[in-house]
Amino acid sequence: MKFICQKDTILKEVEYASSFTSQRNSLSISSNILLENYQNILTIKGTDNKMGFMTSFPVSTEVPGATTVTCDKFLQVLKSLPSMDIEFLEEDGKLKITPIKDSKSINFNIRTIPAENFPPLSTFDETQFFSLSQRDFFDMIDKTSFAVGTDESKFFLTGVYLDKKDDDVIMVATDSKRLSFIRKKFEQDIPDFKSAIIPVKFLQILSNIGIGEGLFSLMITDTQIFAQINGHLIYSSLITGTYPAYQRVIPESFKYECKVKVSDMLEALNRVSIFVENNSKKVFLELKEDGIMASGETSDVGDAKEIISCEYSGEDVNITFNNAFLVTSLKKIDSEYFKLCFNSATTAMEIVPDPEKDYIFIIMPMHG
Amino acid sequence: MKFICQKDTILKEVEYASSFTSQRNSLSISSNILLENYQNILTIKGTDNKMGFMTSFPVSTEVPGATTVTCDKFLQVLKSLPSMDIEFLEEDGKLKITPIKDSKSINFNIRTIPAENFPPLSTFDETQFFSLSQRDFFDMIDKTSFAVGTDESKFFLTGVYLDKKDDDVIMVATDSKRLSFIRKKFEQDIPDFKSAIIPVKFLQILSNIGIGEGLFSLMITDTQIFAQINGHLIYSSLITGTYPAYQRVIPESFKYECKVKVSDMLEALNRVSIFVENNSKKVFLELKEDGIMASGETSDVGDAKEIISCEYSGEDVNITFNNAFLVTSLKKIDSEYFKLCFNSATTAMEIVPDPEKDYIFIIMPMHG
Repeated sequence: MKFICQKDTILKEVEYASSFTSQRNSLSISSNILLENYQNILTIKGTDNKMGFMTSFPVSTEVPGATTVTCDKFLQVLKSLPSMDIEFLEEDGKLKITPIKDSKSINFNIRTIPAENFPPLSTFDETQFFSLSQRDFFDMIDKTSFAVGTDESKFFLTGVYLDKKDDDVIMVATDSKRLSFIRKKFEQDIPDFKSAIIPVKFLQILSNIGIGEGLFSLMITDTQIFAQINGHLIYSSLITGTYPAYQRVIPESFKYECKVKVSDMLEALNRVSIFVENNSKKVFLELKEDGIMASGETSDVGDAKEIISCEYSGEDVNITFNNAFLVTSLKKIDSEYFKLCFNSATTAMEIVPDPEKDYIFIIMPMHG
Repeated sequence: MKFICQKDTILKEVEYASSFTSQRNSLSISSNILLENYQNILTIKGTDNKMGFMTSFPVSTEVPGATTVTCDKFLQVLKSLPSMDIEFLEEDGKLKITPIKDSKSINFNIRTIPAENFPPLSTFDETQFFSLSQRDFFDMIDKTSFAVGTDESKFFLTGVYLDKKDDDVIMVATDSKRLSFIRKKFEQDIPDFKSAIIPVKFLQILSNIGIGEGLFSLMITDTQIFAQINGHLIYSSLITGTYPAYQRVIPESFKYECKVKVSDMLEALNRVSIFVENNSKKVFLELKEDGIMASGETSDVGDAKEIISCEYSGEDVNITFNNAFLVTSLKKIDSEYFKLCFNSATTAMEIVPDPEKDYIFIIMPMHG
């Protein structure tokens, strides 16, 4: 097998493919990517058995054929090469990589594993794909995925829940102490699909491969999710399990609302967090009509207090937050102001942009 | 105690002071810095008992006095404050920190330890200092300190050796597998001083506090080194022990010389190092009259080869280097070309700029 390809063209695709290989054992086939070189088209495939990747692009085929090569080292080699045409030649169980017209005589050999050892990618029914806006779908990923759980014993919470309700698409993420919810109406007609729990890693890779403009295609089966995006096919197994009844966590109405400038609150939390104890992670908010006092305290060392102006007309109340949860949610607010909505100091708190948009964040307060 | 000071003025000094405090226990006095506020001058002192720091600068003294505060948190607080005048007030065992004319009501309290608990700094004889060029001395630090040892069982190798020979100043660093040597004639008259092993951390801090221009003052006693630099006094204990007879490691003459462009060699090593095995760290150089072939090999995975042009007229020879040692030394060469000088493939190799300057690097080759 032999082909010639510009370095930057193949480098970008191998970078994408590397997310779909396992790096645990560089001698195993699952750490390899498949290179199929026929009729001036190179097809690259990668799979770690849960997720898969395929892309094709033009090269100069000199000798057709296919082989597999360990992705990690292949990627490092490509990154190190000068930006020029590169020759890839498979011979004697090695992939020889040589820049063409190179005064420096650069020569790499990487051990190959025969193409027939590469596991087949999942097959799919091309007709079941539907199209939707990259920008809108990526916005849903951005507003939810930070809130997934990391506890492997609650594996079903490590994914983002995707559902359709009436004509809207819904995404939810929760680690059981906080929750993100977004409900969006797409300009495109979205057919009904079965609700699914999608591994957050797949959604992050999807956002990374996409350009955030135009459409892409999605298909959801009983066990897998497939996407066709900017010339790449990618897929992943879904997470099995029953997603919790998240609607019950979102209060239907609130007694109190407090309106605050997002940047004021984030700057204050940045300072106050110097004295938020790492183990307790507690930041204290005292809401009064004339302002919020945020404070943190590290016993025996010191404390920090700061008053933030707000619009609030309820009774005085003291709320204790996990500082990181509050900061992470506020950083996702894409408005100048946010509202903190609640019924009492000990029940679910809602954080929403003001004026409201299509997403909400719920945080359970801590015990003061 | 109470004083007012611009945030950026005090922040810079506390950053310097923090290198001289111990961060192991934030409740211990050795993690604190001393603030002495008298007659519109603030003096900051820090010491971890081995090293010490002192600086003074103008502030507005409102109530004179002294106290100590934990440096780590104090530094974090200062960094978080807006750039404006800040009030520092000691009261009830706390240092209260409040920006003046602040619409946000920022308020920090840090626990203090009384000034009388702070250990005295080392005293010294002001008349024993001598002046020398910052730029030249920093260049000596830069050309040697990367080669010190990290093995605590050979503690005397973790410092840089400083000596005077005839009218020149000498610095040496070695970890017993490589060695850096620089010999410089200063424009200033340097009095005789006793040779000393200086902790590398002290020299790095010295370079950091200095501005690299103009003069600074140095004093070396039997057990300590003192420096006065850009308004700061800093000192450190010396490392006790006998420094090895480094002169014996530096060959007096060489049979072979090979001249190479520094950037050619570094670019090749950058690529070849992809296949340098982490455990063996070996990079192989085959020297011939028509070029050097650099290569690396990771068994079962692959290899990399690259030919670098050179000027060499000796017999063919294969040399095995620790890749990191070779790269680190070459990165310190401030010339377009370097020379690799040697007598045989298994004895000490010298790397020097071409044309030669005032420093040399020695690397022991590895067993091929």
